Amino acid sequence: MLKTYKYADLTTAELNTLVQRNVDAANEIRTVVETIIDTVQQQGDRALFDFAQRFDQVQIDKLYLNKAELAQIATALLPEQKTALEVAYKNIWKFHESQLKTEDKVETMPGVTCWRELRPIEKVGLYIPGGTAVLPSTFLMLGIPARIAGCKEIVVCSPPGKNGKVNAFIAYVAQLLDVDRICLVGGAQAIAAMAYGTESITKVDKIFGPGNQFVTKAKTIIQSTTITAIDMPAGPSEVLVIADETANPAYIAADLLAQAEHGIDSQAVLVATSATLVEQTIFQLQKQLPVLPRAEIAAKAIEHSYAVVVNSLDEAMQFSNQYAPEHLILATENWQQITGSIINAGSVFLGNQTPESVGDYASGTNHTLPTSAYAKAYSGVSVDSFVKKITFQHLTKEGIQNIGPHVEILADLEGLHAHRNAVSVRTQQ
Amino acid sequence: MLKTYKYADLTTAELNTLVQRNVDAANEIRTVVETIIDTVQQQGDRALFDFAQRFDQVQIDKLYLNKAELAQIATALLPEQKTALEVAYKNIWKFHESQLKTEDKVETMPGVTCWRELRPIEKVGLYIPGGTAVLPSTFLMLGIPARIAGCKEIVVCSPPGKNGKVNAFIAYVAQLLDVDRICLVGGAQAIAAMAYGTESITKVDKIFGPGNQFVTKAKTIIQSTTITAIDMPAGPSEVLVIADETANPAYIAADLLAQAEHGIDSQAVLVATSATLVEQTIFQLQKQLPVLPRAEIAAKAIEHSYAVVVNSLDEAMQFSNQYAPEHLILATENWQQITGSIINAGSVFLGNQTPESVGDYASGTNHTLPTSAYAKAYSGVSVDSFVKKITFQHLTKEGIQNIGPHVEILADLEGLHAHRNAVSVRTQQ
Repeated sequence: MLKTYKYADLTTAELNTLVQRNVDAANEIRTVVETIIDTVQQQGDRALFDFAQRFDQVQIDKLYLNKAELAQIATALLPEQKTALEVAYKNIWKFHESQLKTEDKVETMPGVTCWRELRPIEKVGLYIPGGTAVLPSTFLMLGIPARIAGCKEIVVCSPPGKNGKVNAFIAYVAQLLDVDRICLVGGAQAIAAMAYGTESITKVDKIFGPGNQFVTKAKTIIQSTTITAIDMPAGPSEVLVIADETANPAYIAADLLAQAEHGIDSQAVLVATSATLVEQTIFQLQKQLPVLPRAEIAAKAIEHSYAVVVNSLDEAMQFSNQYAPEHLILATENWQQITGSIINAGSVFLGNQTPESVGDYASGTNHTLPTSAYAKAYSGVSVDSFVKKITFQHLTKEGIQNIGPHVEILADLEGLHAHRNAVSVRTQQ
Repeated sequence: MLKTYKYADLTTAELNTLVQRNVDAANEIRTVVETIIDTVQQQGDRALFDFAQRFDQVQIDKLYLNKAELAQIATALLPEQKTALEVAYKNIWKFHESQLKTEDKVETMPGVTCWRELRPIEKVGLYIPGGTAVLPSTFLMLGIPARIAGCKEIVVCSPPGKNGKVNAFIAYVAQLLDVDRICLVGGAQAIAAMAYGTESITKVDKIFGPGNQFVTKAKTIIQSTTITAIDMPAGPSEVLVIADETANPAYIAADLLAQAEHGIDSQAVLVATSATLVEQTIFQLQKQLPVLPRAEIAAKAIEHSYAVVVNSLDEAMQFSNQYAPEHLILATENWQQITGSIINAGSVFLGNQTPESVGDYASGTNHTLPTSAYAKAYSGVSVDSFVKKITFQHLTKEGIQNIGPHVEILADLEGLHAHRNAVSVRTQQ
């Protein structure tokens, strides 16, 4: 259980293999997904009804649930469940709201003023997966920043359950977000419908949300063949826990298992400053794992997870930066000494009282994060993901006189005479 | 010259056709580009030497120019050329520096604190095109935000000229940016080299820069097959000018031509509040176009450009938002009344004294912008493009007690017992 490596003993090649995740495992499904996309593009709603029957095993007579229907479904929730969703809603709203900032105007030269203004992306599509674990939390994580950004149209797709509906949690979140309808469409067909539009589903400018390999492949194809953008490529979820002697092995084990239960392809990595700590954690894993309802899934994920023993927290952070984890837990009282050296990570959980689960649901941060080492160049979803920053510039007559001669020289230098002339017609009058 | 449509007469279908740009014209070159990428991945430097000979018709004995060599090349510049580049450098730096902001910590619940910290993307690759127009301005537009962000390694690729070198302007910008070397690699092979790394060229986390259809196709392939990110997809450049009776037809014509001279696939659209204004602009185009050194290119671009006559500035803005232009010029003294209704645009030029050329070179805004209606969901390049925003959260013992019960309910609700347990092990002690 939990293969263990010693950092100092690893060659560069071994290290590279260890931090490598397969980013394109789903390439063999490309043709299947392309066919689904083509069918939706050509047949619209009719294709979506057919796919619901074929893939979700349910015959639906309408492709969406409206506000009244959602309100009815949501009545099944218990009061404490509503409260929990509301607490999550408030925390996520409060943190994301702080991301919305007005920017200052900058006078770069006398008479030359530049600035940026935010504009919401007009139409966004949110994909909320169904399947083994229904995820109302994902709906909150995508819907709240979309609302804060001020997106005019929010299209929501989620696969229908066996009863042709969505569950009560999803329905209640739709109420909290004041969403007009939820479209009963799942899988690659949902992505295609939002990218191309159908009779019932509005074509959107950007598509957000996690999903299985079909959803992910569809998003990648849409991104490279249309002007519809996507939030980011999504791979299996992962956590990296850095722990020293101030950590609690029972907590570490619980955090590794929370990651492992997501799916058999999830990865949970422990980077510990001693071999003893790894042994103690394995002891706790053996104790906690068997009693989990999803023990079988978690056990398989733990099988291809591993531990690395390092000599110091600095060495741990070196490894972590090479791995570039989606979730990084600093299970140490000494976290303040190493946060400055974090280079690559999606979201970071500081100290022994901050399990990843709080960020998954309710601390306020977003749980839509870059996996598979995408954290080297991508950020998680935020209000930024739902807006464009448009640049503006204004020149006075003084401004064009000041900057004009330099622009003329630069235009000449690039051999672009009409660029020069656009200045000259103004300055020579 | 300049086909003219009346906005009120256009059907939805005609309107959609008019604003449509071809986003995947280059799909037929996919196989060629894939072969180039594979060759670079397999043969490294050797492939790059071969491609330089094949595509750039030059035999080079070293794949890069170092600082001393660049300094030597830069001595060819005239003092006023240096000054012009320095003015551009200062303005771009000043505006982009203002984009770098520290964010506040937010206590979402007592004992639960969330915030974001910026981290530079560690290794970035900048592609500076050669070809018909050499673009030192692009080097400034990409290099300055990379420096402000604090990227540790900046790899620069640009195709070698017939003398096996880069020109003096590029060399001088390299000095201004304090770049160690310029790699003499162009085209799809440059993108492949930066994505996979070779003996001489460092593998990077994100690739920036415009280029021909081979470069663009290579970037799209890299984005969907590796974890290396790209700035954005790039299509032919375009401008949309909104003009009313306060505009100057000579200025409008000059601005349209500045766009048209970029390439035969460039598009210049005029949206005017009267047919007379369109006629006056055509008169000016006929006067200004023939004397341009790049008249042939500009004439072809103007051929597939057009004018739209609208009844009001509001109607003009409706059309513009549907077009989603890379560059939007508001050629009117009344620009303040319509900037609020701009939804989709890359960069906006306000009033009659603000030609697009100033933004191309030196006003301070970035000229790497979303084309082809990508402005509906994408922003131009900024310091944001060179950083990641990592979320952090810290809980005190009080914090986990406050949020814990709600997270437990939410975890139950999603059927994720190990997620619940990661909280319980902490709160039940």
